[in-house]
Amino acid sequence: MKTYTNPTPDTWADLCQRPQLELEFLESSVRNVLNRVRKSGDEALLELTAQYDKVQLQTLNVSAAEIEAAGRTLPEALKEAIRTAAANIEKFHAAQRRDVLKVETTPGVRCWRKGVAIDKVGIYIPGGSAPLFSTVLMLGIPARLAGCREVVLCSPPDKTGAINPAILFAAAHVGITRICKVGGAQAIAAMAYGTASVPKVYKIFGPGNQYVTKAKQLVQEEGLAIDMPAGPSEVLVLADETAEPAFVAADLLSQAEHGEDSQVMLILNDARLLAPIETEIANQLEQLPRRDIARKALANSRVVILSDRQKALDFVNTYAPEHLILNIAQADAVAGDVINAGSVFIGNYTPEAMGDYASGTNHTLPTNGFARAFAGVSLESFMKYITFQEVSPAGIRALGPVVELMAEAEQLEAHKMAIRVRLDKLATNP
Amino acid sequence: MKTYTNPTPDTWADLCQRPQLELEFLESSVRNVLNRVRKSGDEALLELTAQYDKVQLQTLNVSAAEIEAAGRTLPEALKEAIRTAAANIEKFHAAQRRDVLKVETTPGVRCWRKGVAIDKVGIYIPGGSAPLFSTVLMLGIPARLAGCREVVLCSPPDKTGAINPAILFAAAHVGITRICKVGGAQAIAAMAYGTASVPKVYKIFGPGNQYVTKAKQLVQEEGLAIDMPAGPSEVLVLADETAEPAFVAADLLSQAEHGEDSQVMLILNDARLLAPIETEIANQLEQLPRRDIARKALANSRVVILSDRQKALDFVNTYAPEHLILNIAQADAVAGDVINAGSVFIGNYTPEAMGDYASGTNHTLPTNGFARAFAGVSLESFMKYITFQEVSPAGIRALGPVVELMAEAEQLEAHKMAIRVRLDKLATNP
Repeated sequence: MKTYTNPTPDTWADLCQRPQLELEFLESSVRNVLNRVRKSGDEALLELTAQYDKVQLQTLNVSAAEIEAAGRTLPEALKEAIRTAAANIEKFHAAQRRDVLKVETTPGVRCWRKGVAIDKVGIYIPGGSAPLFSTVLMLGIPARLAGCREVVLCSPPDKTGAINPAILFAAAHVGITRICKVGGAQAIAAMAYGTASVPKVYKIFGPGNQYVTKAKQLVQEEGLAIDMPAGPSEVLVLADETAEPAFVAADLLSQAEHGEDSQVMLILNDARLLAPIETEIANQLEQLPRRDIARKALANSRVVILSDRQKALDFVNTYAPEHLILNIAQADAVAGDVINAGSVFIGNYTPEAMGDYASGTNHTLPTNGFARAFAGVSLESFMKYITFQEVSPAGIRALGPVVELMAEAEQLEAHKMAIRVRLDKLATNP
Repeated sequence: MKTYTNPTPDTWADLCQRPQLELEFLESSVRNVLNRVRKSGDEALLELTAQYDKVQLQTLNVSAAEIEAAGRTLPEALKEAIRTAAANIEKFHAAQRRDVLKVETTPGVRCWRKGVAIDKVGIYIPGGSAPLFSTVLMLGIPARLAGCREVVLCSPPDKTGAINPAILFAAAHVGITRICKVGGAQAIAAMAYGTASVPKVYKIFGPGNQYVTKAKQLVQEEGLAIDMPAGPSEVLVLADETAEPAFVAADLLSQAEHGEDSQVMLILNDARLLAPIETEIANQLEQLPRRDIARKALANSRVVILSDRQKALDFVNTYAPEHLILNIAQADAVAGDVINAGSVFIGNYTPEAMGDYASGTNHTLPTNGFARAFAGVSLESFMKYITFQEVSPAGIRALGPVVELMAEAEQLEAHKMAIRVRLDKLATNP
């Protein structure tokens, strides 16, 4: 990790840069996949699955028998852990429900708004070595709480044509039964355009590699909603002399093991705190199966020494981390001053791993500085608010003349007429 | 208007198509503008303004003296109308504020989320013949209520180098003082990249022509947030024998006068209701200064006869209109079954014009079927929610083992270690 001591604010923009890794031909390759799926539907999906996932499927849909079998093969302890995590996620997201908001802005003019579920949503869950069943909970639970009528989950099959049983169990546990064996950009295309086996949806959620991310970006251009722009995962740890070096090291490594492009930032108020943390990192690294990945990610990472607390906080808000861990004295007070972050972990006993799995907050969060304008996934991500208004004769008598004046000044005479014909009618039938 | 009688649902997708008008070379032309502004900043803005707005400006910023003068020249009645509308918009949006949500999901595991303003936002207001000062209220008021620290407004100057006084007055009334004389794609570029005169922002709001819309789409690809994807404005009027033909005609014309590409849909339960509405349209059209525009928009528009009430509602939800006017018996009950719409206007005395200006709801709404997944602008559009969690030693003792099991199953051993080092520490210091 490269160390920067009290860098001046004019250098912060560079320090806050995330690694950029765009594959050559990424866009044209993804456009090609989208076009094939749009044109040939299931046929293209089966061909692409044979090509990329090395398995020739007969059907794209996971059967009820496969879901049931997954529940039987999974260890009971893991199933119970999934149930516990799901219960916490449900508690936190259910509390986000809002009552219908009614306001009488002028006597006789009643306005309200009502949250309504997005009717059809799609969830993408990557495959690969680590089955991200935790993400099934993070997306499936708010989708169910919101009341989405159709929830489809796509995930790539392994070489035997199966989806990891933990993913199937988690999906069934949160009530998702429409599961399709398809991954990559072709899965995003299938949910965006619809095929015989995969229903078309209005919004797509979920993480993925660069192909998936590019596909989500391209269908977004066509007007489909997506959860948020994506980038590699990242953490910023703010630590001082009250932090345990072993805890800081483990939290940095938790991020670094995600992928070579994960970014880890460590902000310390004193350069002397670094050595014991580095020692702990070296020790813990040896125990990790994914140490090669973690080592490469750490090479991209930075230590910034900022002796001034306010400067450190300004740096945090400039960086806008996906995950922010506050391992400092008075962490609670500092948390109140954070304006740009996805999720904040307060104190020595709140590692990011708690929020990744089970504290109840959502782990689908804005990366790459997007936390400046975007929030993580919440119950509202699966809903939209519709506004309503109902005006009585008294209401239009009171407020109609205001609208007439404004419409006239905007040179929209038909808008004015829409008020005038009604006021005329009321004048003749008082 | 073309009429379709009881069309079968398999034809609805075609009937719900919006007119597509993409100019040739639009994207390359807009990319060129974005690149010029990114490279040359204010110099490019001044050149582009000379080229497109036909005025050579000395400075891009509106002065305090210009804002003050605008307030003096505007008629008092219009100023009072703007104040009244602003007060209603403020009442409705202020009621959208939420308290911080705290949930203890497991004893010792406290989670909450807090709405935080987006620090820097930009508002685009088109110029042209009709000065859209109402949109200044619709975007400026929630920005101020949210607490955005920096709010910049861009609008193109007229040939004398001035911005319409109603726009300046409305901006000053809602507390916006940073106003820049720049329009089109160059305004979007300026707010996305920042120039000496125009600050860089994190999210851009506001309507515009195809150049503005394309520019917003392109900066969104680069990770900037925008309010929502845009398309021409539209209304769907659902009417039955309880509707006043003159009211329906005026509401259809209010939409049609916006632009040639505006779309108007009329759903009737009985074909015999159409003739009196058409007569009223013909009469009112003659009184409109913008009758040529309205006539062309009506040519794009459709009347659908659906004698079955449930079918009509299904059609509404398939079309997903920006504005939905319910001029029918039991409009309230039907409103409760609407799942896809931007804003709903209930009953004979609630024309769209009320919501466009003064009822209090926001008039920046999803068009082009985007209401299936997107909502209109609200207070939350100017905020993001940050989640927080704080775990006590008791909390990690209770929930840590769940996280360990899940992390292990996802093959993320460093995540497990982040729990283990803490549980080990607690075991040695009980």
